[in-house]
This record gives sequence, structure tokens and C-alpha cells, in this order.
Amino acid sequence: MPIINLDHISSNPLMPEVKEAMIAAIAADYHNPSSQHRAGEAAAAVLEQSRETVAALIHAANPKEVVFTSGGTESVNHAVKGVMLANTKKGRHVVISNIEHNAVIRSVRRLKGLGYQVTSLDVDAKGCVNPADVAAAITDETILVSIMHSNNETGTIQPIEEIAEITRKKKVIFHTDAVDSVGVVPIDVQSLGVDLLSFAANSFYGPTGVGGLYIRQGTNVWPLLDGGTQENNKRAGAENLIGIIGMAKAAEIARQKLPERMAYLKRLKSRLINALPGYIDDYIINTPENSLPNLVSLSLRYIEGESVMLMLDDEGMAVSTRSACASGSLRASHVLLSIGLSHADAQGTLVITLGIDNTEADIDAFLKALQKVVKTLRDISPLYQKA
Amino acid sequence: MPIINLDHISSNPLMPEVKEAMIAAIAADYHNPSSQHRAGEAAAAVLEQSRETVAALIHAANPKEVVFTSGGTESVNHAVKGVMLANTKKGRHVVISNIEHNAVIRSVRRLKGLGYQVTSLDVDAKGCVNPADVAAAITDETILVSIMHSNNETGTIQPIEEIAEITRKKKVIFHTDAVDSVGVVPIDVQSLGVDLLSFAANSFYGPTGVGGLYIRQGTNVWPLLDGGTQENNKRAGAENLIGIIGMAKAAEIARQKLPERMAYLKRLKSRLINALPGYIDDYIINTPENSLPNLVSLSLRYIEGESVMLMLDDEGMAVSTRSACASGSLRASHVLLSIGLSHADAQGTLVITLGIDNTEADIDAFLKALQKVVKTLRDISPLYQKA
Repeated sequence: MPIINLDHISSNPLMPEVKEAMIAAIAADYHNPSSQHRAGEAAAAVLEQSRETVAALIHAANPKEVVFTSGGTESVNHAVKGVMLANTKKGRHVVISNIEHNAVIRSVRRLKGLGYQVTSLDVDAKGCVNPADVAAAITDETILVSIMHSNNETGTIQPIEEIAEITRKKKVIFHTDAVDSVGVVPIDVQSLGVDLLSFAANSFYGPTGVGGLYIRQGTNVWPLLDGGTQENNKRAGAENLIGIIGMAKAAEIARQKLPERMAYLKRLKSRLINALPGYIDDYIINTPENSLPNLVSLSLRYIEGESVMLMLDDEGMAVSTRSACASGSLRASHVLLSIGLSHADAQGTLVITLGIDNTEADIDAFLKALQKVVKTLRDISPLYQKA
Repeated sequence: MPIINLDHISSNPLMPEVKEAMIAAIAADYHNPSSQHRAGEAAAAVLEQSRETVAALIHAANPKEVVFTSGGTESVNHAVKGVMLANTKKGRHVVISNIEHNAVIRSVRRLKGLGYQVTSLDVDAKGCVNPADVAAAITDETILVSIMHSNNETGTIQPIEEIAEITRKKKVIFHTDAVDSVGVVPIDVQSLGVDLLSFAANSFYGPTGVGGLYIRQGTNVWPLLDGGTQENNKRAGAENLIGIIGMAKAAEIARQKLPERMAYLKRLKSRLINALPGYIDDYIINTPENSLPNLVSLSLRYIEGESVMLMLDDEGMAVSTRSACASGSLRASHVLLSIGLSHADAQGTLVITLGIDNTEADIDAFLKALQKVVKTLRDISPLYQKA
């Protein structure tokens, strides 16, 4: 049975052009870009060309401000730990939000274990951080503010520009985890005004296990990986050149097709949201207006999201109950509790993420399957009977 | 002009079977192994199968003791920083050797900046650490000993078993950087007795940007990458599954062909060393008897290794003057100074690393080219004229 992928945030398919570029890179079998003979120089040229292409996607002023990493999680760890450790003489305080990805939350938890202080800000019912709260949280000890660009469970897009104005005024470094935004919505590090920005290739139909960290020139940050002089001394280790070449191809296409893709995804998303009342009731849409074009968070009351996910799987449809990175945990999502959902509603939540490979027929098939699954589960739900 | 690669330590070519496996992985375009629907489960199955294959290469008791990383540098950073930060309550002292790779040296330098203490041990003229020195260096504050399995510039293989006996007795954690050994010489984490062991796929003709860290069950170590629950909670972040599949295929072949490969490389290495006196004089072989089968370190007196490398490049031959990871630095190699070479002799050093794709004809062509280049450079060397 072919699977309808409605879990793109966990894994986007590779673009055919990305596959071709990676296969060509495997055939070319480049030498080490750090080697100073001609075989090394040929590899270095491809690496730097890839850096230019990726830098263009986020409008970095200088390609050298882009550091290639092993993905969004490494980028975030590098940014958060690297900035805090590098600036300890100035202070030990970091400000985040309650709905950050675990890469941020668990990174600052490590720092806490080393004697650093963390302030984590509440969000409103839409999942939005209030810039005034950021301003109020910053002290003389604050080194870093890390607020995500978009949330991976609700799709909420944060007021990054407004927060950046505050951090600039207060001379605090600002990192944004834009892993689910880069290549999905327009991202311009100049207009955003951030100092560091994390991203991952798979979000724009490139390979997993490769990503990047934008580091604005002059930002004081330690490498996470110490060793050789690769990546302009910002990230040691032999490069995953095949992955980087795939990411560059994906970035090139994403930049060209961004408006078209956004319009298409928004249309599918609207089709889904608008049709829902015809299929189910007793649900909550957790995704606000200003959100990712490809994400719908849907809380199905009185039933377990996990059960819905598994039954949809039997129907040949992949959805997520929360971030794939958090799977394996049985606790309710910290994000959904933070926006004010009850524990029960949080547990009944599906994250549906659309991709450019989805069709209107996929949406319609999903709605039908969802109707069936929800009815089956509610028929045996004591909570539903009681309500 | 086809290039004769005598710089395999900087980059080994991909085995044809590895290329095939990676191309098949690109075509399969797996979903996220952390997703709990069937698309995720299919990816997880491939991931765990790869882990078993890689674990077999190093004789890990349990595949779960193998953590996939973005390469040797990440593995080393994870091991060194992870162990020291996790065990701060017990102490803050780490013991390394003077000839470790920069991944180790710069990792402990970071720790020093955070108030940790480092003891770096001398080596003898062969590049060997004396186990008695390790025993003497360990204090009640010592958490970790990190001594490399083989050195990337001299090829020296260290007495890891003897050191492990000491660390076990003294209840100190022992990490070995085996990046240039795994897949090249037999590595058995049981007989070595180490607690952690770093390795990289490219050393055994797998892709760059992917590697592993062996962590013996029960070893107290923090993740370097915090976030999701991937890799049994030891390394967060979506996996580079295409690279991991390539590494597993390379590991499978390496395990089968190790004796054959070693015999072949030793024969080429002997041919090179034995023939040298017929082509050049005034040189030093820095590689001791007990060394990697594929590495020859050669100090050419009175001339610059950099110039030799560039002129050999013009002859279509790739060699290294030192670790590719250290290229970009003009300082003499810390390894060569540590084994007692003068600054001048250190600067005149070539690292020749052979691969299974090299032939006897490559060796003969190299010897002829080397003779020509050395003569040209010595004819214009004031140092040589004076001597």
C-alpha cells in the first residue's frame, strides 16, 4: 500500500534534482576539501559553491557566515552552548520560551547543570511570545535570547523582528531556531535582525543529517566541535560533502519556488481546515493565522492522538502526534500544555504537515479516514460517552 | 591527468559497493526513523541493521553501545567533553598525550578554559606513550584518559591494552581515538578494554561526514547534541541515514577483507620503504615498526614538505604534509616535534598514506617523481648547499 505522507515535518521526500545531485556527488567521489593538492582544491571549490547557494536562501551578507552542520539539532546546540560558554565572563543568563524545541530546552538544561541561569517565557494561546516579556526578562547578566522562528507543533510564527530590535538595543545575542521555517517561508537574516539562525536541509526537501548555522560576523561563539580548521575555524571535522551538495541543490530550488510552494501548501491547508466540520466535531485547531503554510495542529477531544495515528497508519496515512524528535516520550507535549490545552486535549493532538508532493485527493482521503477513525475511537471512549 | 592518491588519510575513495548502497538509499528515500508509523518503522529497521553491522566491526557486545555521529571529530568531542562534563562532581582532571589529534587537544583546551586540569604526556622517539607515565599521571581527581589508538602523522600504534589495564584498576574512564585504525587494523573493544572509542567511516572506504562512538554500557557521559531521544538518548538529531547506510556497507566489507587489505598495504609500504635509498638520501623515516600498514612518514632534510607536496601535485600525485585537518596552519606539526624532530626536519615531512586502490606501479611512479622533486628543491636549497 502506498503511504500518504502527512508527516512532512518528520521527513520531507528528496526532490528528484536533489537525488540527482547527490548521486553525481557520489560518482565524483571528491577528495578532502582541506587537502592542499589539486584533488583537495576541487572538493573545496564545490564546498564553497554550495555555501554560496545556501547563504543566498537566507540572505546572508557573506557566505562565510554559514557553517555547515550535521542538522538542525547540532546547529541549535552549537548556537546555544557556544554562545553561553564563549561569553561567561559577561554573564550566565539565557532567555528562551516555553515552547522551544527540545534541542534548545535540553541544551539550556545542560547549561543549568553547569551553573547558568535560564528564564523561560510563557506564550499566549496562539503560541506567541510577547516581545515585551523578552525585554523584561533581559538583565545585565543576559548573554543570549533564543526564540524559535516557527513552532514545530502549532506552526506559530514568532515576532522575531520585534524581539531582535530589543536584543540589539540591549546588546544581547539573539538566536532563532528556524529549522521548520527556512525553505518553507521567506527567511532573510538581514530583515529578521538575528545574530544566529539554525536550519536543516530536510525542511526544504534536502537530505536529513545536514543543516547549517548562520553566525553573523563578529558574534562571539565557541565551536561545538573542536579540532581542525574546517568551516572557517567554526566547526571542525571532515565535511559531509555529499549531503552538503544535496542541501545546496535543495536550497537553490527552494529559493526559486518559494512563493509557488507557499501558495500551493496554503491552498491544501485551507481545504483541510475548511472541510473538517463536514467530517468531525469536538476538535480544536491549535494553529493560528500567522503560521507555517504546511502545518495543522488538530486536537481531537475525548480520544488519544497516539491511537488515531496508529489507526491512520493502518489506513496508509502517516501523521505525527507531536514532533518526531520527541517520540518515545509518553508525556503530553510541553508546547500544547503551554498554549493552554488540557492534558487530555494535548494527548488527543495530531500534527498534520503537508508537502509539495501532497494533492487535494490526499486531503480528501485523509478527511474520510479521519472521520472513520475518530468515530471508531469515540464509540469506545468512556470520556466521550460521558460528555 | 589522473591523480595518484597517496593521501588516503585525508580521503579514501568510496568502495563501489558503498556507492551502490548509498544510491539505493537515496532511491528508497526513507522516512524519519523516530516516527512511529510504518514509514518510520521501515527507516528504523534499516538504521538498527546498520548499527549491528558497524558494531560487529569493532566487536561491541551490544549494538546499542554504538552511537552514530557526523564523523571522527564529533565522536572525539562527544567522548572527551561528554565524559568530563558528566563527571565533574568526581573531579576535573584529564590525561592525554602530546601527539593527540587536534580534536582531542582542542577539546581539552576548551575544558581548561572552564577550569578543568589537563596533563599531556610525552612520547618517545617512536611516538609511543609509556603506560607507566599514564599510571603516574592519574590522580584522585582524574576522570578520563584519552590516548589515540594510532597516530595520523607517524602511524604509531599505542599500547592501548596496557593503558586500559591501568585505567580499569584506577577506575578512570578510558577513551581512544581510533579514527585512523578502525577498518584498517583489527579493533576489538573487548580485548582493548577501552570504555569509549571514536571512529570514522571514511577510514574504511565509507563516506565522509559520518562516524561512530563506541560507549561501553554503564559509562557516564553527557550527549554532545542535546534534543530528541535518537540514538538511545545519546545523540539527538535526525540521522544521516544515507551516510549511515554507506558506513554499514563499508564496515561489512572491511570486516571481511581486513587481513587481505592489511597484507596488501604492508607489501606496498615495504616496497616504498625498501626502495627509497635507491632514489633519495638524507631522509628520516618517522614511522616505527608497530604502525598502521598504510602510512609512511618521511622527513626530507633541507627542504620544505609544502614545496615537495606542491611539486608532486604538478606530477599528478597527492600526498600530505601533515594531517589534512591541520592544514591551513603554518606551524610545524606538534606530533613531529614531540617525537624529537627538529623544526626544520618537521617542516620537511611528507605523510604518504596508501590505499587498496594503489598499485605497485603507483609506488614506483612516486619514487621517480620524488627523486626528481627532491633534486630540484635541494639544488636551490641554501641549507642543503651548506650541509
